[in-house]
Amino acid sequence: MRTAGELAQYLGAKLHGDAGIKISGVAGAASASAEDLIYVETERYAGEAGDSAALCVVVKEGIRVSGKTNLEVKDAKLAFAKAARILAGAGTSEGGIHPSAVVSPSAHVASSASIGPFAVVEEGAEVGEGCVVGAHCFIGGGARLGANCKLHPRVTVYAGVLIGDRTEIHAGAVLGAPGFGYVFGEGRYWKFPQVGGLEVGEDVEIGANTTVDRGSLGTTRVGQGVKVDNLVQIAHNVEIGQHTVIASQTGISGSSRVGNGVVVGGQVGIADHCEIEDGAILGAQAGIPTGKKIRRGQTVWGTPARPLAKFKEQYGWFGRLPELAERVRELERRNSGEEGQR
Amino acid sequence: MRTAGELAQYLGAKLHGDAGIKISGVAGAASASAEDLIYVETERYAGEAGDSAALCVVVKEGIRVSGKTNLEVKDAKLAFAKAARILAGAGTSEGGIHPSAVVSPSAHVASSASIGPFAVVEEGAEVGEGCVVGAHCFIGGGARLGANCKLHPRVTVYAGVLIGDRTEIHAGAVLGAPGFGYVFGEGRYWKFPQVGGLEVGEDVEIGANTTVDRGSLGTTRVGQGVKVDNLVQIAHNVEIGQHTVIASQTGISGSSRVGNGVVVGGQVGIADHCEIEDGAILGAQAGIPTGKKIRRGQTVWGTPARPLAKFKEQYGWFGRLPELAERVRELERRNSGEEGQR
Amino acid sequence: MRTAGELAQYLGAKLHGDAGIKISGVAGAASASAEDLIYVETERYAGEAGDSAALCVVVKEGIRVSGKTNLEVKDAKLAFAKAARILAGAGTSEGGIHPSAVVSPSAHVASSASIGPFAVVEEGAEVGEGCVVGAHCFIGGGARLGANCKLHPRVTVYAGVLIGDRTEIHAGAVLGAPGFGYVFGEGRYWKFPQVGGLEVGEDVEIGANTTVDRGSLGTTRVGQGVKVDNLVQIAHNVEIGQHTVIASQTGISGSSRVGNGVVVGGQVGIADHCEIEDGAILGAQAGIPTGKKIRRGQTVWGTPARPLAKFKEQYGWFGRLPELAERVRELERRNSGEEGQR
Repeated sequence: MRTAGELAQYLGAKLHGDAGIKISGVAGAASASAEDLIYVETERYAGEAGDSAALCVVVKEGIRVSGKTNLEVKDAKLAFAKAARILAGAGTSEGGIHPSAVVSPSAHVASSASIGPFAVVEEGAEVGEGCVVGAHCFIGGGARLGANCKLHPRVTVYAGVLIGDRTEIHAGAVLGAPGFGYVFGEGRYWKFPQVGGLEVGEDVEIGANTTVDRGSLGTTRVGQGVKVDNLVQIAHNVEIGQHTVIASQTGISGSSRVGNGVVVGGQVGIADHCEIEDGAILGAQAGIPTGKKIRRGQTVWGTPARPLAKFKEQYGWFGRLPELAERVRELERRNSGEEGQR
Repeated sequence: MRTAGELAQYLGAKLHGDAGIKISGVAGAASASAEDLIYVETERYAGEAGDSAALCVVVKEGIRVSGKTNLEVKDAKLAFAKAARILAGAGTSEGGIHPSAVVSPSAHVASSASIGPFAVVEEGAEVGEGCVVGAHCFIGGGARLGANCKLHPRVTVYAGVLIGDRTEIHAGAVLGAPGFGYVFGEGRYWKFPQVGGLEVGEDVEIGANTTVDRGSLGTTRVGQGVKVDNLVQIAHNVEIGQHTVIASQTGISGSSRVGNGVVVGGQVGIADHCEIEDGAILGAQAGIPTGKKIRRGQTVWGTPARPLAKFKEQYGWFGRLPELAERVRELERRNSGEEGQR
Repeated sequence: MRTAGELAQYLGAKLHGDAGIKISGVAGAASASAEDLIYVETERYAGEAGDSAALCVVVKEGIRVSGKTNLEVKDAKLAFAKAARILAGAGTSEGGIHPSAVVSPSAHVASSASIGPFAVVEEGAEVGEGCVVGAHCFIGGGARLGANCKLHPRVTVYAGVLIGDRTEIHAGAVLGAPGFGYVFGEGRYWKFPQVGGLEVGEDVEIGANTTVDRGSLGTTRVGQGVKVDNLVQIAHNVEIGQHTVIASQTGISGSSRVGNGVVVGGQVGIADHCEIEDGAILGAQAGIPTGKKIRRGQTVWGTPARPLAKFKEQYGWFGRLPELAERVRELERRNSGEEGQR
C-alpha cells in the first residue's frame, strides 16, 4: 500500500490532486477498483479513465483526467510498469519453510525466504534472502539462488546452477538439464559429458516450460536483465548478453552467442556456433544457419535469414513469380515469332 | 459397463445381434478383448474385425461383420468416439482428497471430486463436482474448476484462473502464468503488469506442457470446445472462439483473436494483434505477421502466409527458378546475337 | 573411481605414464581437477591440456601431452565419452524409497532402485533394478521401467507405458499422454479414443519438457538408442527406428514413421502419415507435408522440403529474383524498342 504522494516521488511525477489517496495495485481502467492505479498514454483513453473506479491515474505530459488524482510523467506506460513493481513487491514473502517441504540439513535457506509445499532443496543448495520458492520446485545440490528470486510452482533447477538476484522463473521451467551432445561410434551414440555449469544473471525472467541446458564442459550463460518467454530452448554452452529479449518457442543451439540488447522473435531457430551481435533483431520464424554471424544492429528474416529489406523485396518477387514466368513466356513467343519472320 | 442394447440406444444405432452383450471399453480390432467395442468405417476392414476377439462392432450403414453384434450407424467413427466417451466416463472419480495433498481450509472441494497425492489447492480455490485433480497439480488461490474437469498429473493453474465444466488438461500444462510484456526505459526492461485473468470454457482440452498466459490488464479467453495440442503457446490477451483446433507447437502472440471453427496446423506462428476469422485454416508452419487479418474460411500457407492456391503456384515456380533463369539467359543470348547481326 | 590403467584397458588405449593415477570424473582442461580426465583430439589443444591440473589425458593417436599420463586411442572424443559413462555410472543409485514417496502396495520396486521425494508410483507399476526415479516423478498404473533407467525430477509416465533398460528421461518430460485425435460431428469435436500404448526402447534419451503421446488404438514406438532433445513433440502412433537423433522443438505428427539412423534437425515439422527412410537427414525447420516419403539417405531442407542441393540452388535464385526481374524488364524494353524500329 502506497499513497499517491509516495508514488509521485518514486516516479518523479508532477502530482495534481490528493497526495493522500491510498493505492494497493494496478489494473486496466475497466476492471480497476478505487485502490488501483491506472494509466493513460494517449488522449483517446482519457474518457475511459475518467469513467473508471480508480482514483489515481498516471498520465503522459499534457494529458489530464478530470476528477482523478493525476501523476504526470514523460512516459506513462513506463511509470505505470515501475509503479506496479513496487506495489506488487510488497508482502510477497513472509518467509518460512512449508512443513511438507524436504530441505537438506546442509542446504542454506535464508530466514526471509519462503519455501512452498512439496519443494525439495538438496544438499548444499543456497536460497537467498527474500526468495519465494513455489510448490513442487526442485533445487538440486549446490545450486544457488541470489536474493529476492521468485520461482513459481514446479520449477526444476538442476545441481550446481547459479541464479542471480531478483530473477523470476515461471512454472515448469527446467534449468541446467544435461544438453544434447553425442559422439557416434561402434554403431551407436555415446553421450558426450554434460558436466558444465549454468549461470543466470540478475533481473532475468524465464518463461513457463522453457528449458536452459547446462554446459557440456564449459558454462551456459544468460546475462543480466535478459527476458525469455515460454517454451524457449537454450542449449549447452550458449552465451546470452545483457537485456536481450527472446520470444516464445525460439530455439538457440549449442555454443551460439547472442549479444546485448538483441531482440529475438517467436519460433526463431538459431543453429549452433552462430554469433548474433549486439542490437540485432531476428524476425519471427527466422532461421540462422550453423556458424552464421548476424551483424550489430541488423534486422533479418527468413530461412536462411537475410537482411529484412532484401528478404521483403525477394519475397515480393516470389509472390509475382507466376507473372514473371508469364512475361518470360511472352518474350519467348515474340522471339520465336521474330525468328519465324526472318 | 454397458450393454450393446444401451449403446445402440445412446448412439441411435440399428442393432443386429445380441443386445445383452456387455461392453466395458474400446480398442482396435487387433488388440480388443471380448468386452471391447471396435468399429468398421470401410468394407476392407470388415475381415480384420471379423477375426477380432471383440463381440460387438459399430459399423457404417451397409457394412456387416458376420458373427458379431453389429451396431449400424451413419458415421461409424463418430459413433465409436461417442461410445468411448460414456464407456470411459464411468467410475473415473470416486471422490476424496489424498491424505498427502495440501488443501487450504478456505478452498472448496466438492465431495465427489478427487484430489491426488501432493496436489496443492490454495486459499479460496474451488474444485467442482466430479473433478479429478491429478498428483502434483497446483491450483492457485481463487482459481475455479467447473464440474467434471480432469487434470492429469502435474498441471499448474495460477491464481484466479477460471476453467469450465468437463475441461481436460494434460500433464505439465501451465495455465495463467504472467505473460511476456515489458516497457523499455532507463537502459533496461520493466515488466508491464500481468494482472489480468484467464477464462477457459467448457469441453476444452489443453495438451501436455502447453502454456496459456493470463491477460496483462484484460483477460485471455479460450472458448468452449476448443482443442489445443501439446507444447502450444497462447499469449496474454489472446481470445479464441469456439470449437477451434490448434495443433502442436503453434504459438499465438499477444492480443491476437482466433475465431470459431478455425483449424490451426502444427508449428504455426501467429504474431501479435492478428485476427483469424471463423473457419479459416492455417497450414503447418505458416507465419501470420503482426496485425494481419485472415478472412473467414480462407486457407493460407507459408511465411508470411498467403492463400494456399497462390502459395502453391508461387512455390512451384520457386522450384523452377533455375529453369526460368536459364530461359532468361537464353533470351539474352539471342538478343545480343540479334544486336550483333544488325 | 578408476585408475588410469583400468581406463586404458576399458578403452583399449595405449598407456604412456603412471597406470596408478586415480580418476573420478571428466572435465574440460580449464576447469579440471587432478582427478578429472580430459581429452585432446587435435594438436592445437595440447598446450592447454598441458597447463591443466588434470593428471590424465585421452589423446588421439600421435598426439602426446607432456607431463601427463596419456591414454592414446584412435578416436579421443569417443573414448572420452565412453570413459565418462563408466566414471559417472559409479554410485548413482544407492537404492531406497524416500519416506515421502507414495508407492502403491501393488507396485514392484526393485531393491536396488531409488525413488525420490514426492514421487508417485501407482498400482501394478514396475521399477527395475538400479533405476533412479527423481523427485516429483509420476509413474502411472502398470507402467514398467527396465533396469538402470534414470528419471530426472518431475517426469510424468502415464499408465501402461513401457520403458527399456538404461533409458534416461529429463525433467518435465511427459510420456504416454492421450494424443490429439477428434471426430467432428453434431457441431463439435469428439475425442477419438486414445487408449493405445507407448513403448520406449533401451538406451533411449528423452529431453526436458518433451512430450510423447500414447497410441490411439495402436502403439507409439521409440526404438533402441534413439536420442530426443528438449521440447520435442512425438504424436500418437508414431514409430521411430533405432539410433535416430531428433533435435529440439521438432514435431512429428500422428502415424508418421521415422527409420533407423535418421538425423532430424531442430524445429522440423513432420506432418502425419509421412515416411522418413533410414539414414535420411532433415535440415532445421524443414517441413515434410502429409503423407510424404523421404528416401533412404536423402538430405532435405525447406517447407515443403526438397533435396538439399535443389533447395539451395532455388533459394540462391530466390535471392537473385530482383536481379532476374530487372533482366526480364530489360529484355522487354529492348523488345518493344525493336518493335518500334520496325
